[in-house]
Amino acid sequence: MADVEAAREVIRRCRALAACSDEPGFTTRTFLSDSMRAVLVKITMWMSAAGMKTSVDAAGNLRGVYEGAAVDARRLLIGSHLDTVPHAGAFDGVLGVVMGLSLVESLHGTRLPFSIEVIGFSEEEGVRFGVPFIGSRALVGELDTTLLASRDAEGVTVAQAIRDFGLDPSRLADARTDANPLGYLEFHIEQGPVLEAAGRPLAVVDRISGRTAANVTFVGAAGHAGTTPMNIRQDAVAGAAEWIGCVEAHAHGTKGLVATTGRIEANPGAANVIAGRCRVTLDVRHADDRVRVAAIERLRVAADEIGARRGLQIEWSLQLDQSGAAMDPELVATLVRALDAAGAPPTVMVSGAGHDAMVLAPHMPAAMLFIRTPGGVSHHPAESVDENDVAIALTAGMNFLNELAASFNA
Amino acid sequence: MADVEAAREVIRRCRALAACSDEPGFTTRTFLSDSMRAVLVKITMWMSAAGMKTSVDAAGNLRGVYEGAAVDARRLLIGSHLDTVPHAGAFDGVLGVVMGLSLVESLHGTRLPFSIEVIGFSEEEGVRFGVPFIGSRALVGELDTTLLASRDAEGVTVAQAIRDFGLDPSRLADARTDANPLGYLEFHIEQGPVLEAAGRPLAVVDRISGRTAANVTFVGAAGHAGTTPMNIRQDAVAGAAEWIGCVEAHAHGTKGLVATTGRIEANPGAANVIAGRCRVTLDVRHADDRVRVAAIERLRVAADEIGARRGLQIEWSLQLDQSGAAMDPELVATLVRALDAAGAPPTVMVSGAGHDAMVLAPHMPAAMLFIRTPGGVSHHPAESVDENDVAIALTAGMNFLNELAASFNA
Repeated sequence: MADVEAAREVIRRCRALAACSDEPGFTTRTFLSDSMRAVLVKITMWMSAAGMKTSVDAAGNLRGVYEGAAVDARRLLIGSHLDTVPHAGAFDGVLGVVMGLSLVESLHGTRLPFSIEVIGFSEEEGVRFGVPFIGSRALVGELDTTLLASRDAEGVTVAQAIRDFGLDPSRLADARTDANPLGYLEFHIEQGPVLEAAGRPLAVVDRISGRTAANVTFVGAAGHAGTTPMNIRQDAVAGAAEWIGCVEAHAHGTKGLVATTGRIEANPGAANVIAGRCRVTLDVRHADDRVRVAAIERLRVAADEIGARRGLQIEWSLQLDQSGAAMDPELVATLVRALDAAGAPPTVMVSGAGHDAMVLAPHMPAAMLFIRTPGGVSHHPAESVDENDVAIALTAGMNFLNELAASFNA
Repeated sequence: MADVEAAREVIRRCRALAACSDEPGFTTRTFLSDSMRAVLVKITMWMSAAGMKTSVDAAGNLRGVYEGAAVDARRLLIGSHLDTVPHAGAFDGVLGVVMGLSLVESLHGTRLPFSIEVIGFSEEEGVRFGVPFIGSRALVGELDTTLLASRDAEGVTVAQAIRDFGLDPSRLADARTDANPLGYLEFHIEQGPVLEAAGRPLAVVDRISGRTAANVTFVGAAGHAGTTPMNIRQDAVAGAAEWIGCVEAHAHGTKGLVATTGRIEANPGAANVIAGRCRVTLDVRHADDRVRVAAIERLRVAADEIGARRGLQIEWSLQLDQSGAAMDPELVATLVRALDAAGAPPTVMVSGAGHDAMVLAPHMPAAMLFIRTPGGVSHHPAESVDENDVAIALTAGMNFLNELAASFNA
């Protein structure tokens, strides 16, 4: 079957690109690094061989255009990101770019009623500057001056990093995509266990969850672990622990809600001292923004109640309050039919993780196709994909292109 | 009243000694430091003026002997430690040495049927070498070669530090106290809020709590905070939080038990990653060793149950298992009478903190007198004592000496 061959080639390419790394022995590829340049060179070569016109915009995004039948044809964007987290796997991001290229290749020069632009976003993970989505934000004209002034660990600004890479930050406005694109399609690994547990190879994403992040600090009174009786303690760790129980219980009791307390620190943080402060991070996500906002409100009240009962002050510091993003219903429906025609059970799910599609969705019709992630393992060298899943995804992608093309003739 | 004058002088001296510090602006005085030398010089001067014979033993302990009426008189030891934690107050430790000296001064040359040796222990807090009680262990001949080989942050061994201070580690055996001392008396601030809450100036300590310290690690599986549904998580922080609730509840439900989880760390410790590991410190103390051991056993079972239910592994690493120390019943009874005669309500309590008396107790009759600590604040520059409390303690101390002296004539 042709698609299995193509899938094998996609996986081979992803693994070859994984060798381009800032750090030998691992895959770590940050925004505008030398290893990113190596990746751009390799993919540009493949794109050119597929008859695409390539360029790198001022934000470092790789843009490869496969022209449509007409000169002024509307454009379908297919993409994902080329940067990685430290010690990453070979597929998060890169897979979506390489699959877009593979779809163009399988057209074998046939022109569609629309052109296809395959985009490799330069930055999504937020590793170098602590700010994610730099590539996709540039594409929609949302890379503001505040963001350009962000500095990396060496004190280099985004603007300087762009110059150092040989690009011109004054040309950033040119990175903005043409008005009225046909839409944006992103293939991405699920990065979670849902598809594997359901025994499904693929899912159409109909919504990307909104997310609230906060630092919640419980402030009590430090004291001697030996000389302070239990009944007069204001133990910050004990208060935080009770609240973590509330967070977990509320998430368990609310369908679709995930809540995580991934980092916790006590001060002074000595075994023989009752902690006077304890800081916990909170990460809450839900497809429905109202459910998320209500959960946050409820968890704030729970913290205040625990604080009042235990004589603890609560410091609530909001870090992020990001609305969810709906995928385009028509593109979602088209993708579902494409899946069905490819022999995969039509599955729709919410993405709990953020993706470039989230940044593009307010500006154009956007949709995503998730590929099953063995063991749910991602952001890790052991990250993998099954070649049969990739083959079905390529078939579904081609079905999607064909239905889109047919709609021009209707 | 003479004792109020003496109490004021005791407090003045403690505050003067607090200026001897390794760190300007704070009181930080570590084992065998230059600031310790300055303290030894000052106290030696005061001791000599009081007619005492002074020396510094090979462990750096200051020994001041006020001879009794007979040449071969038995010896009563009165002491505490001269070292401090970083950024300490002026009274923890030092107060007990200065009060011993004050009692000798108020004898005005009168000889008792026993001699008095006032000891300023060189090391109790364990700051420099991470090993506490170096001074008192030397006094009872428990300073073994393992301990002498301990290194400080600069890599200096205990033996080398002793040499650097101008002392001879080969003479450590000479630091051992003479056989058959009459007993050991230690005045010390309570370092807790119990006496203040009870409205009592002083308490006799009849027992020093035993202590168990352990590191308890919950091992689950790290995962993406957005893509991992609640029902398949193995969240190490959530498991640890549930267990911390058990620890607190068990301590609340067991009279006299104190249990503390003062340090907690999650790994990888990122806001958007479910923690795969979470380490919590446990510190459990009780006057009755059996209650403490039973509590530890129960908390181990609770951790195992939580682990089994949540799919977490439990790693239990014992750090310390120290038995409690009983004070000598006769000395305790004598102290209680001495308190009563001084007009203080006779109060007896358990010490939750460890003290030099704990090290000496297996080798001789030992007893302690606690002095009320305003706000329970210690190990902090704001640590203080009330001069009236110190005055009553001095009166009680003199009553104690008089009853002891009278027993020789009986």
